[in-house]
Amino acid sequence: MRPTDRERPVIGFLTDFGLDGAAATCRAVILSICRDAQIVDIAHSVRKYAIRDGGFLLRFALPYFPVGVHVAVVDPGVGTRRRPIGIRTRRGDVLIGPDNGLLIPPAEALGGIEEVRELTNRELWLPVTTSTFHGRDIFAPVAGHLANGDGTFEVVGPIIDAADVVRLPEPEAATTDGAIETVVTYVDSFGNVRLAGGADELASAFGELVDGQPLAVEFGGDPPLHESSQYGTTFGAVPTGASLVYVDSLGNLAMADNQGNLAARLGIGHDRPVRISRA
Amino acid sequence: MRPTDRERPVIGFLTDFGLDGAAATCRAVILSICRDAQIVDIAHSVRKYAIRDGGFLLRFALPYFPVGVHVAVVDPGVGTRRRPIGIRTRRGDVLIGPDNGLLIPPAEALGGIEEVRELTNRELWLPVTTSTFHGRDIFAPVAGHLANGDGTFEVVGPIIDAADVVRLPEPEAATTDGAIETVVTYVDSFGNVRLAGGADELASAFGELVDGQPLAVEFGGDPPLHESSQYGTTFGAVPTGASLVYVDSLGNLAMADNQGNLAARLGIGHDRPVRISRA
Amino acid sequence: MRPTDRERPVIGFLTDFGLDGAAATCRAVILSICRDAQIVDIAHSVRKYAIRDGGFLLRFALPYFPVGVHVAVVDPGVGTRRRPIGIRTRRGDVLIGPDNGLLIPPAEALGGIEEVRELTNRELWLPVTTSTFHGRDIFAPVAGHLANGDGTFEVVGPIIDAADVVRLPEPEAATTDGAIETVVTYVDSFGNVRLAGGADELASAFGELVDGQPLAVEFGGDPPLHESSQYGTTFGAVPTGASLVYVDSLGNLAMADNQGNLAARLGIGHDRPVRISRA
Repeated sequence: MRPTDRERPVIGFLTDFGLDGAAATCRAVILSICRDAQIVDIAHSVRKYAIRDGGFLLRFALPYFPVGVHVAVVDPGVGTRRRPIGIRTRRGDVLIGPDNGLLIPPAEALGGIEEVRELTNRELWLPVTTSTFHGRDIFAPVAGHLANGDGTFEVVGPIIDAADVVRLPEPEAATTDGAIETVVTYVDSFGNVRLAGGADELASAFGELVDGQPLAVEFGGDPPLHESSQYGTTFGAVPTGASLVYVDSLGNLAMADNQGNLAARLGIGHDRPVRISRA
Repeated sequence: MRPTDRERPVIGFLTDFGLDGAAATCRAVILSICRDAQIVDIAHSVRKYAIRDGGFLLRFALPYFPVGVHVAVVDPGVGTRRRPIGIRTRRGDVLIGPDNGLLIPPAEALGGIEEVRELTNRELWLPVTTSTFHGRDIFAPVAGHLANGDGTFEVVGPIIDAADVVRLPEPEAATTDGAIETVVTYVDSFGNVRLAGGADELASAFGELVDGQPLAVEFGGDPPLHESSQYGTTFGAVPTGASLVYVDSLGNLAMADNQGNLAARLGIGHDRPVRISRA
Repeated sequence: MRPTDRERPVIGFLTDFGLDGAAATCRAVILSICRDAQIVDIAHSVRKYAIRDGGFLLRFALPYFPVGVHVAVVDPGVGTRRRPIGIRTRRGDVLIGPDNGLLIPPAEALGGIEEVRELTNRELWLPVTTSTFHGRDIFAPVAGHLANGDGTFEVVGPIIDAADVVRLPEPEAATTDGAIETVVTYVDSFGNVRLAGGADELASAFGELVDGQPLAVEFGGDPPLHESSQYGTTFGAVPTGASLVYVDSLGNLAMADNQGNLAARLGIGHDRPVRISRA
């Protein structure tokens, strides 16, 4: 099939490689193989080695992509025995990356895992591979070949039992009548703080909430940090600089300052325990 | 019309979303609708909520784009009553974004406003919209549909009187014989400082200038800051590390250090008053 | 030739312009001329004015690009007498940029210089050119025209003697039996430190090395800095947080911390002298 006779493949691409050439090299490898690809860089300034941040961002972005082949590389174990894998999702995507838990959250957001294969077919790799740059040598070319239609998913290598794939513990929210115990899962570039749990936990703890409902938030630590906040459906529901508890555009429980940076103001980072209760 | 039978649409895209996935999600939404678009990311690390910085960058970049549909989102009022709008420029572009002043400078640089419409046609939006991410839910899909030729500009919603659109006060330069009173409008990534006014103000205040003409610059504040500078047509007209007053590539009055960072050296930020006079 | 009848041209693009609109303006100029180009941004946050960093990144990335027209602008002498040039490489690429040494490392990585021409044909430039933004006014449009097939390389301007092109001194490694004297050539976003020399120097100094071979590293300075390190073929060959000496994915001698940031931990920057010996 000539590239101009088909719909152009859209390839999502996420790494922690930073902005100094490594991700570009991978893009060039993909385009060398699949010239008409539309590569969408999801993020390359993911916190170094932060597999969970990468998984969060993939889960955030990929459901809005067309079905396609997507590549993700946050890979502290590059060159060790961790396996390079591909996951076919129920939605029909193929996710390419390391077997370290990175691909699980997006796979679940794309309908769940249908099939996992280990990338072993060296015909799809670059002719020379190194032990420190599998993004360029293995993941990018495999994705390029699949996006280009050079064979179907089966060609990448043998099936792995989905139960054997590495999974990271998923942060969870616990609710009681009147409170949610949760944890910071991601801090975005606005300083908005995403938390485990979502609208269900909010309803379970507090019933129906209206804009302006006062909420007491305690960030764990020694000493703990207390923030007087309120529920809001939109940033503008609270005064400029004030904080709100809201459900973000992905359905996560979240906190933000209206036109401010809550994480910087309070010094909040990922994994911080959070307790939200009626004020 | 099949995508391969037409010239590929070029879509300029600017936000203050940062580099962690939100802009990529919008790109994916656009490509889901208009697969062959050439999306050009103008900037996504615009200072958060800095509508005027966004307007400056759009005015800087868009005149060099082909006529097209362009999207800009610096939107502290997302989810409140501020209107989502589209502006058709005299040059023929359509600018999509919030009605908060962001789109006015580029519209003026693209020939002026021809027509403004409120985005109300939900058939062009994502099926589910949230109150915190209109970039993804409204602006990106509307732009994608227009770029794809899914109807003309009229389809987005009803006309708004251009006089009712939000405009921000425009910083201005005042000249007397022998001096310019102006203000810092933007600090770029080199630390070069863009000022209100341009070549006309320079000629009005000083007549014809030649490279090396000494100029005294006073940055307002308490105490004010004095910088001995000189006029130059190019950075290399002054010694390495020395400052010059010049007309930038867009026609703005500007100051820079040759191979240095003037803004960092002097601690100059946006909105700082500046007085330039003969030394 | 209609764009849809050919393979889409891939254009590598590197600048020190930062992320606030200048590089985007150049992309728009290229796409205005060559609508179906696949522009791959190699890096735009290159350290300001750091010609050698730019050359390093081009040499790192471009060998993985398809043969094409590539543009690079790290150009402290913009607007002065430094010449705008194009270099045709033996591999068949054309490199467009300033004559300041930036294009030499990638030209050598792409088979060597075949022909150099000065960019003098103003028909390929923007109609109006400024003295501070040749990236937009000269380099981008020339690249766009060449990529679009609007004439062959000869059209850009007259031949320059390759011996007259500016070259920067190349950092080198010296080996004795049992030691390498080298220098830091680049610090990447992981804090990994690239050094002059490569596998040959390593073999010449130490013979065959195996994972875990202790090495003593001295970073020059007053006082010098001593680091107990070891050889490794992959990051995971040493404990988390420990340093290793390795050969990077491009063949450079390099040092890194496994899952850490060696440059930040030790305070190491470019041009630092380094001596590696058996421990």
